[in-house]
Amino acid sequence: MSGRLSVIGLGPGDQRYLTQEAVNALHIADVLYGYGPYLDRVPARDGQSRHPSDNREEGERARSALRHAMEGAHVAMVSGGDPGVFAMAASVCEEIEAGPPAWRNLDVSIVPGITAMLAAAARAGAPLGHDFCALSLSDNLKPWETIERRLDAAADAGFVIALYNPVSKARPWQLSHAFALFSRHLPGTVPVIFSRAVGRPDESLTVTTLATAGEVAADMATLIIVGSRETRVIARQGKSPLVYTPRAMSKVPA
Amino acid sequence: MSGRLSVIGLGPGDQRYLTQEAVNALHIADVLYGYGPYLDRVPARDGQSRHPSDNREEGERARSALRHAMEGAHVAMVSGGDPGVFAMAASVCEEIEAGPPAWRNLDVSIVPGITAMLAAAARAGAPLGHDFCALSLSDNLKPWETIERRLDAAADAGFVIALYNPVSKARPWQLSHAFALFSRHLPGTVPVIFSRAVGRPDESLTVTTLATAGEVAADMATLIIVGSRETRVIARQGKSPLVYTPRAMSKVPA
Repeated sequence: MSGRLSVIGLGPGDQRYLTQEAVNALHIADVLYGYGPYLDRVPARDGQSRHPSDNREEGERARSALRHAMEGAHVAMVSGGDPGVFAMAASVCEEIEAGPPAWRNLDVSIVPGITAMLAAAARAGAPLGHDFCALSLSDNLKPWETIERRLDAAADAGFVIALYNPVSKARPWQLSHAFALFSRHLPGTVPVIFSRAVGRPDESLTVTTLATAGEVAADMATLIIVGSRETRVIARQGKSPLVYTPRAMSKVPA
Repeated sequence: MSGRLSVIGLGPGDQRYLTQEAVNALHIADVLYGYGPYLDRVPARDGQSRHPSDNREEGERARSALRHAMEGAHVAMVSGGDPGVFAMAASVCEEIEAGPPAWRNLDVSIVPGITAMLAAAARAGAPLGHDFCALSLSDNLKPWETIERRLDAAADAGFVIALYNPVSKARPWQLSHAFALFSRHLPGTVPVIFSRAVGRPDESLTVTTLATAGEVAADMATLIIVGSRETRVIARQGKSPLVYTPRAMSKVPA
């Protein structure tokens, strides 16, 4: 029997963001791996085994799934959001490259999902309607100097910026540092969106400005979008504002 | 009767990328608007009218849909990929801001979709596994000097770069110009991915390097991902290579 491994994006939050392809891929798998709370979002199916793991064990989780698939099982590794954006797909590739040569022969497929910034942007309007970048604010896996350099470059060049992993208990100061850095390039009126737990029952959306962004609470479930000079806010009575970045910009160089 | 407008992402290519939320939103709409080939991807339903339009009429299409919703209809505007990424959601917001004040009271929702770069990345492995940016190479709506400045900033700061709208008949030289510019910052060995018509029967994937990227054909249906210095290629016998950007980078500043 020839095994295979599918790395499947569930999207953020509940079932609404699952794609048809993800539903099919989850259904035909013999074995599911993943971070416990993500696995809990997948409906149970008879004959399908589950291997939940802690959030901090990506490497070991990927190796276990690869070994299981090499034994002939059809293995699905579930991931929140999109598996290719700060998630499990890169981890699986890392382990394939570092592992036994036979792992390279395994049938591996990645099933894309709605990543948090797309769901958050949709809630707010169309803040990613023009050029944008996505950056993890975690300095667990890269030097803080590199993050600063990227934030500087992105803000200076006029990209809208989506910040993943903005805050954790072990990283309390990085986000305010990032806002201070943006303020060197951008006016205080630039819109900033905080989207927390998007797609979940307790989801919330806060639209503020760069000048006051430091006063808004954020945690690991928050996705932050910092606008560019072009990003606009449409106030609406009795509704949250629409935030968007126009497709066109003036033909005068920024 | 109170009208509403949903702007719905179909994902790239066929039905496999449709989310549950998009399926539901398409089903309950009275009226569908959109670029003809995208509308053709939505199964017909009795009692639902269709208003296909040309690809170049975004503003007029958005205004027609808004007027129709203001008359009380439940209108769905379909968009390829994600409506918030170089697509219809920003166009709808532009028209709401410029239109009659009453348009701001309309119930507007955006349904996110799989954007082309996520589907293309999934096909190749995990090239967007670390910080990345998305940039439209079209200078129809922004000055070429701004595009150059952003390409420079992104390549220099170590972002992986997804290029939307790389080439058209009216814009034949911009892509080779972009590759030349990247070559000032990045070694010729950096992986470059060409993903054409992803999710369609004629889809293709080409993995090459920056040094030879200029020799690969591209058109408006092509999404290009230019790696960073960290992006790696895992060769595989009888299979296309896996391209990925590791989550961790060395703690030495770039």
